[in-house]
Amino acid sequence: MREGDVTRRRFLQSVGISGGAGALFATMGALGLAPVRAATPSFRAPQQSDFHLTGRAARKVVILGGGIAGLAAAYELGKAGYDCTVLEARAITGGRNLTIRGGNAETDLDGNTQRAAFSPGNYFNAGPARIAQWMVTLDYCRELGVPVQPFVNANADALIHNDGSAPIRFRTAKADVYGYVSELLAKATDQGALDSVLTPEDKGRLLAFLEDFGDIGEAHEYTGSFRRGFSVYPGAGTDNGTPLPGPPSLSEVFASNVGRHFSGEFSHDQAMMMFQPVGGMDRIAAALTAAVGRQRIRLGARVLSVTGRSSDVTVTFRQGGRDQAITADFCIATLPPNVMAKVPHNLGANVTSALSSFFPFSAGKIGMEYRSRWWENDLRIYGGITQTDLDITQIWYPSYDFHARRGVVVGYYNYGEQAEAYSALTPGARTARAVEQGVKIHGEKYRSELAGAFSVAWNRMPHVEGAWAYPGDYDSYRLLLEPAGRVYFAGDWLSNAIAWQHGSFLSARKAVTALHQRVLTA
Amino acid sequence: MREGDVTRRRFLQSVGISGGAGALFATMGALGLAPVRAATPSFRAPQQSDFHLTGRAARKVVILGGGIAGLAAAYELGKAGYDCTVLEARAITGGRNLTIRGGNAETDLDGNTQRAAFSPGNYFNAGPARIAQWMVTLDYCRELGVPVQPFVNANADALIHNDGSAPIRFRTAKADVYGYVSELLAKATDQGALDSVLTPEDKGRLLAFLEDFGDIGEAHEYTGSFRRGFSVYPGAGTDNGTPLPGPPSLSEVFASNVGRHFSGEFSHDQAMMMFQPVGGMDRIAAALTAAVGRQRIRLGARVLSVTGRSSDVTVTFRQGGRDQAITADFCIATLPPNVMAKVPHNLGANVTSALSSFFPFSAGKIGMEYRSRWWENDLRIYGGITQTDLDITQIWYPSYDFHARRGVVVGYYNYGEQAEAYSALTPGARTARAVEQGVKIHGEKYRSELAGAFSVAWNRMPHVEGAWAYPGDYDSYRLLLEPAGRVYFAGDWLSNAIAWQHGSFLSARKAVTALHQRVLTA
Repeated sequence: MREGDVTRRRFLQSVGISGGAGALFATMGALGLAPVRAATPSFRAPQQSDFHLTGRAARKVVILGGGIAGLAAAYELGKAGYDCTVLEARAITGGRNLTIRGGNAETDLDGNTQRAAFSPGNYFNAGPARIAQWMVTLDYCRELGVPVQPFVNANADALIHNDGSAPIRFRTAKADVYGYVSELLAKATDQGALDSVLTPEDKGRLLAFLEDFGDIGEAHEYTGSFRRGFSVYPGAGTDNGTPLPGPPSLSEVFASNVGRHFSGEFSHDQAMMMFQPVGGMDRIAAALTAAVGRQRIRLGARVLSVTGRSSDVTVTFRQGGRDQAITADFCIATLPPNVMAKVPHNLGANVTSALSSFFPFSAGKIGMEYRSRWWENDLRIYGGITQTDLDITQIWYPSYDFHARRGVVVGYYNYGEQAEAYSALTPGARTARAVEQGVKIHGEKYRSELAGAFSVAWNRMPHVEGAWAYPGDYDSYRLLLEPAGRVYFAGDWLSNAIAWQHGSFLSARKAVTALHQRVLTA
Repeated sequence: MREGDVTRRRFLQSVGISGGAGALFATMGALGLAPVRAATPSFRAPQQSDFHLTGRAARKVVILGGGIAGLAAAYELGKAGYDCTVLEARAITGGRNLTIRGGNAETDLDGNTQRAAFSPGNYFNAGPARIAQWMVTLDYCRELGVPVQPFVNANADALIHNDGSAPIRFRTAKADVYGYVSELLAKATDQGALDSVLTPEDKGRLLAFLEDFGDIGEAHEYTGSFRRGFSVYPGAGTDNGTPLPGPPSLSEVFASNVGRHFSGEFSHDQAMMMFQPVGGMDRIAAALTAAVGRQRIRLGARVLSVTGRSSDVTVTFRQGGRDQAITADFCIATLPPNVMAKVPHNLGANVTSALSSFFPFSAGKIGMEYRSRWWENDLRIYGGITQTDLDITQIWYPSYDFHARRGVVVGYYNYGEQAEAYSALTPGARTARAVEQGVKIHGEKYRSELAGAFSVAWNRMPHVEGAWAYPGDYDSYRLLLEPAGRVYFAGDWLSNAIAWQHGSFLSARKAVTALHQRVLTA
């Protein structure tokens, strides 16, 4: 998610390990010694053969929650023959891995019901929508046969918008900021201001870099660049194109603060390339569901209580208006911590307290279908994200079916207070507000071409009640990493990749590994 | 093409218009006044109805060359009912728009014959391979129903390699260079070295930008960043991941010169997003060919002479071993200028001289099919381009069929002397040399996993004899923008987008417009 770097830092601070991670940045010497590898923590899935030597047998496991963590746990345990049952309160699996298509309906905690009217082929990923190359999520796509395609997380032709000003393209903003930064640093270097920290060789190399990086030439002055883009691009014959007017002055460029949007794409979880499953993020949940087996998944099954004993665990749940119970050897609880905190259990007050210490965070998204792909046809924006200081925060252009007739834009993806402001509105009022804001960037066609919309306020989503959750303190976080008797906890909230499926998968693997090890050695 | 910005500048300098274009960068005032539009020069295709008012009729046109310019000219003229015949010397249309699949064969000017053995579904775009969002090429894809998908032109996880050092990822190199650049500029600013050019407000805004841009914190010191990447990415529980060792010192970073590779993706024709047709670049040529009508295209037809008269043009050509002639009202010559310069004609010594003034440029590419997609599976590189100072220049990872079993890597795409060095080798020796070099970056699997290769040396390709051609002087360029009697010239070489299909399309449109206007007003 766009603020991943921020949320990660916030998370690291919140669990008190920021200094530890920072201390790992020990200088190792010359460039080139850094190994080119990118792995996820090692994992060996449980296998049926694991039981041959130990004489033990796969056990029965009840899994609370059919989101990515719950499905992944059932999938991995299933490889060794564990008898898993997944209890999912919603009518479909996937949890926040939710893709909205025409005909899908959702009713929120306030009783608002929406039914999507998107045209066939169009969809809206209401939850996770992008996958970094290093994330284990891609490994599951490969293993499960879910085809992937690029997700456009950064686009030089997407826009940066400040309320009250006309938007500019990222390419223009970058050319100007990099131009002036290079000019300033070249000037300071030329004047000898950095002679105490730069050798003559350093200076020469730095200046050569800056001349190229900022397109400032040997005069060390930024006066514009083809990199800013053109209003009419170069053509045939003597048509050299019409460069955009500008650049603005250095003061104007820094006053506009456009540079604040550059670092998002440098972060370890946001840098391009990124990917999405072909046809919607829920293709992952669908593939996991098929691999687990639908007969192992109880839908519409809301957990009522968890009772752990020395030899087993009993979970009661309500399904189809009827209270039922299931007793298993182990339980893996993957509900959001704030939801799990409300489930009666006998696991101890410290567990309740630890679960309650997590605080859910609000985020909201709206999918808006347009009758034409004006962003491609008129603005030549093929996917990517426009950033704005309006409360919609950002507008996403679709990364699939380029050149199709219609397309679904994400009209806002906002967080915290801004998300809560939208979530307090009816779905119709959210759409109206998103349109009102988007018109400031894209003009009246943002209203006139709109065919329909569907919004999700995660804090108002039954059985989810938040976009993601942060740990309140490190002790609580640590406590839930250990099983409470025969009950294990898992989810992105117990990982260093909160709000990412990567975290859900790895947390599920961790719980599965611990459970399996226990069964093998008990 | 990666060096587009450089070639464009070189071109603008070569035609003497660099100053003129630069002068257009007039400051227009505050940020936000720059219009967000991106158009190609306006064009109205000829239509049959154009003839109603003038009482004139569509004429017969012979088009020399069935590459993109020739096909586009025939396609646009065909909309108004012109009777076009395309003469193409090669066995297929498309010219440099060439996609190699299993079974395709080519014989070069030295008599080397290669037959591709790529597996079904795999292909290699030997000529143009990427399309910027603003390029008219995408309009043709939309109009002709050729689906497009992202082409990965920049990837934070692709590598930068200096011979003798281990490669590092772009994300690591960027974090280090941006970190030290920010540290240096922040230091100079803090010391007051820029007080004469920065207001106190500018300073505050600049420093806030640098702290974020370089991840240098309030200490204004670069000590590493998560942006560099991890050898093991953050996982579940207390696994914070293993950041890459480093960073190297400032002197080491600038000595490595990794920053020279950053600006390529800022240029107006290389910035992401970029696109490619699904299934191979030649889907554009195939769609144009179908739209023109195969019956209008003579394949294997080599032009022998062009004779212009006041009332018509006669072109002789050899097809199937037989010399033939065609007489038409007009001719559009789209052969490469260096090839056209060798065709006998009566258009005047100045035309010959102008054609001869263009000089062809060498570029070569090799497609290498691998039995496994180790770049995805082992290195987590999903598409994109690794840059190296070895003579292979770059390695491209495929932007299609992610997670498939096999894949085709571009093992070199080099220019000028490096291309000529490879073109002087037999195809087998080119492959061996490309492997030898690639092993230095990717290790022995670069050799052991190789299934087959196919290389194209454009300077040795019959009927093409160059990757693209630059004008030698502006007068020659200008001369060929005007018709020589009834003969018009077109091609990317007569545009401000040399080596791009965009240039071919726009040049064809320009010739078509002039020809049609002449017919309507004659």
